[in-house]
Amino acid sequence: MLTLYDNIESGNGFKVRLILKLTGNAYNYVHIDILKGESHTPDFLATINPNGRIPALKFEDGRVLAESNAILCYMAEGTRFMPTDPWQRAQMLSWMFFEQYSHEPNIAVLRFWHHVRSEFSDLEKQLMPQKEKAGYAALNIMESQLTHTDWLVGDSMTVADIALFAYTHVADEGGFDLSGYPGINAWIERVKAIDGYAPITEE
Amino acid sequence: MLTLYDNIESGNGFKVRLILKLTGNAYNYVHIDILKGESHTPDFLATINPNGRIPALKFEDGRVLAESNAILCYMAEGTRFMPTDPWQRAQMLSWMFFEQYSHEPNIAVLRFWHHVRSEFSDLEKQLMPQKEKAGYAALNIMESQLTHTDWLVGDSMTVADIALFAYTHVADEGGFDLSGYPGINAWIERVKAIDGYAPITEE
Repeated sequence: MLTLYDNIESGNGFKVRLILKLTGNAYNYVHIDILKGESHTPDFLATINPNGRIPALKFEDGRVLAESNAILCYMAEGTRFMPTDPWQRAQMLSWMFFEQYSHEPNIAVLRFWHHVRSEFSDLEKQLMPQKEKAGYAALNIMESQLTHTDWLVGDSMTVADIALFAYTHVADEGGFDLSGYPGINAWIERVKAIDGYAPITEE
Repeated sequence: MLTLYDNIESGNGFKVRLILKLTGNAYNYVHIDILKGESHTPDFLATINPNGRIPALKFEDGRVLAESNAILCYMAEGTRFMPTDPWQRAQMLSWMFFEQYSHEPNIAVLRFWHHVRSEFSDLEKQLMPQKEKAGYAALNIMESQLTHTDWLVGDSMTVADIALFAYTHVADEGGFDLSGYPGINAWIERVKAIDGYAPITEE
């Protein structure tokens, strides 16, 4: 059986939980307390992920895959959540790299500071205005797309939607106000209505 | 013909230039002066990339693809730089997402501040120590792999190597000392020896 090393508060972990549930893959859940440094023990670094991050997915034969968006692509291959058209795949990856570079470091990091860790350094406090601005810029780009289409790529939900949904639907926990984003809000309801959906609070 | 919107100083742009050259795709080169805001004009945002970033690759039929690593994957499909094995593809994407989250925001950003823009705000100055530390941590992870294998994934060069090579081989311009990284240095020479290689300074 699969083993998921994860933290229940993590949106990156939620991406993996969601694709595993949507594709009917059972898994053992190992909670890693990142605030207590459990993702940086010598054992974790040596056997799970040298980058000291969750989520990481371990297969029955011992192989381990890190990086939430890489796990999404691998587990979705051959399912309805992975387009077969090369251009749709390209757009899907474009959204997923956008997520890790322009969205997650702003929206997820502010949520981590405010909601998960509930404290921040002076330097982090100084960074908040620019992370807030960049987070809204990322939301604006999503809104431009989702005003015109039901899903980020093509005519149905793909792993690009899962990648962007993870931290967008809890952006309020990072201090973001989504009330001015009707396209995003309709899309959030669309994702939640997918058969097999389970919330971020569920292992 | 393809049109590449790029800035010659950009390692992300270099990734695209390199895969286009290695795969024999001719392209028009449009230099975008990012320091003068040319990637944030209303026209650029509306027709090239709403995220205001280079590189972006425009196809003859008008389609545009943004995000360097998504472009790498799309242009490498069907070539020797894209593995066909699903597990190797998963590892390749894992390295590429690692690059955009754990490597580029540290090594490329310090290079941008020191080498490209040559000035920095007080806040940026405060961020330097943690970016330096995180940059070396990323290099250490690469070194662990490249001590044991010639390439990041499998037995030959893939787009994962191109993605990580782009900013690693000019990390000294961001103040990084690569002298303690024999695995990385041998790999850099290996990439440079690939047939069709052209340096970052070449359009």
